Amino acid sequence: MKKGIFITMEGPEGAGKTTILEMLYEHYIEKGIKIVKTREPGGIRISEKIREIILNPDHTEMDGRTEALLYAAARRQHLVEKVIPALEEGAVVLSDRFIDSSLAYQGYARGIGIEEIWKINEFAIGEVMPDLTLYFDLDPEAGLARINKSNNREINRLDLEQLDFHQRVQEGYYKVIDKFPERLHKIEASQGVEDVFEQSLRAIDAILNR
Amino acid sequence: MKKGIFITMEGPEGAGKTTILEMLYEHYIEKGIKIVKTREPGGIRISEKIREIILNPDHTEMDGRTEALLYAAARRQHLVEKVIPALEEGAVVLSDRFIDSSLAYQGYARGIGIEEIWKINEFAIGEVMPDLTLYFDLDPEAGLARINKSNNREINRLDLEQLDFHQRVQEGYYKVIDKFPERLHKIEASQGVEDVFEQSLRAIDAILNR
Repeated sequence: MKKGIFITMEGPEGAGKTTILEMLYEHYIEKGIKIVKTREPGGIRISEKIREIILNPDHTEMDGRTEALLYAAARRQHLVEKVIPALEEGAVVLSDRFIDSSLAYQGYARGIGIEEIWKINEFAIGEVMPDLTLYFDLDPEAGLARINKSNNREINRLDLEQLDFHQRVQEGYYKVIDKFPERLHKIEASQGVEDVFEQSLRAIDAILNR
Repeated sequence: MKKGIFITMEGPEGAGKTTILEMLYEHYIEKGIKIVKTREPGGIRISEKIREIILNPDHTEMDGRTEALLYAAARRQHLVEKVIPALEEGAVVLSDRFIDSSLAYQGYARGIGIEEIWKINEFAIGEVMPDLTLYFDLDPEAGLARINKSNNREINRLDLEQLDFHQRVQEGYYKVIDKFPERLHKIEASQGVEDVFEQSLRAIDAILNR
């Protein structure tokens, strides 16, 4: 049934995922390959409504597991309405973030447990696992520096707390790599954009030409 | 940590759950027992907002698994905000519907699979399983007749389709009994209200005096 290729991009904020995704998209469009780019919640109205509940800053009473179930629900609907139809039409689908973000952020960094988060996401996505996941690895301090640079401000106490969190996110992604060594392809994001792009391209081409 | 007793009531519409729950509540209040009655989403605002998404008749594109994850999310928040605090204070908590509704309706009658629905609900509720579940069993035709009687109309084609669905719900509950024979206590709901009440009381007292 599934004929396309499903590729997801993962990593911390500041690692350049979105930039590379746009470059890859343009590259394959030029080569005449049928490609769809997306990111959760992908403009799917049910998923957007679910995200409004998750992101409402007033909802301070929200439990971590409630949040995880809501993310899985939004992911499911985005998958069913956007990703699966594109795959069935034989497209290459490039998604900025997918299941591994939940595993690294909520499962590991927030402490719910990777296996626990895996359980509900397995329910949400069924057989539709990515064929390839590009993981943009970046030293947490470098990532923070990039974010802060773009915000034009100095590092403060809050950022130091964030550093601790960002370190846990990186550790979380490393656990995910241990769990899915075949699927995840790690790319050193501290390199120049062109190098990151070239390595991403090689990893994707290896799948496309398989 | 948990000191109270958690009791849930299950069964099809028309089986008299709500009536019996009110009678039980009054009975234990009079006996001076600390008791809390609730039903999902229980007035919890995050759960109410989740239910608005589920029940919005305009959301015809909603996938069955998205719906199941949303129910589990609403259940989690209700549990954390209302059920667990009451149990920690040592109360008897009576809830009109809980996890078994999802297992019977979505897992079995809607065809997603009881084990699949169990997986995400286990994530949602953790260790907080009911100490006792009263299952009000009613022949699907009798249940439909009761509902229709209260609606003051004759049975039509749609009701016949509903009959088929109600039969699957009953089969679903029987599967749940097979899975949790110790916890579920089946009561024949076609009896008079007083008999149903007496049998409910005996089942609960057996737990309270344990």
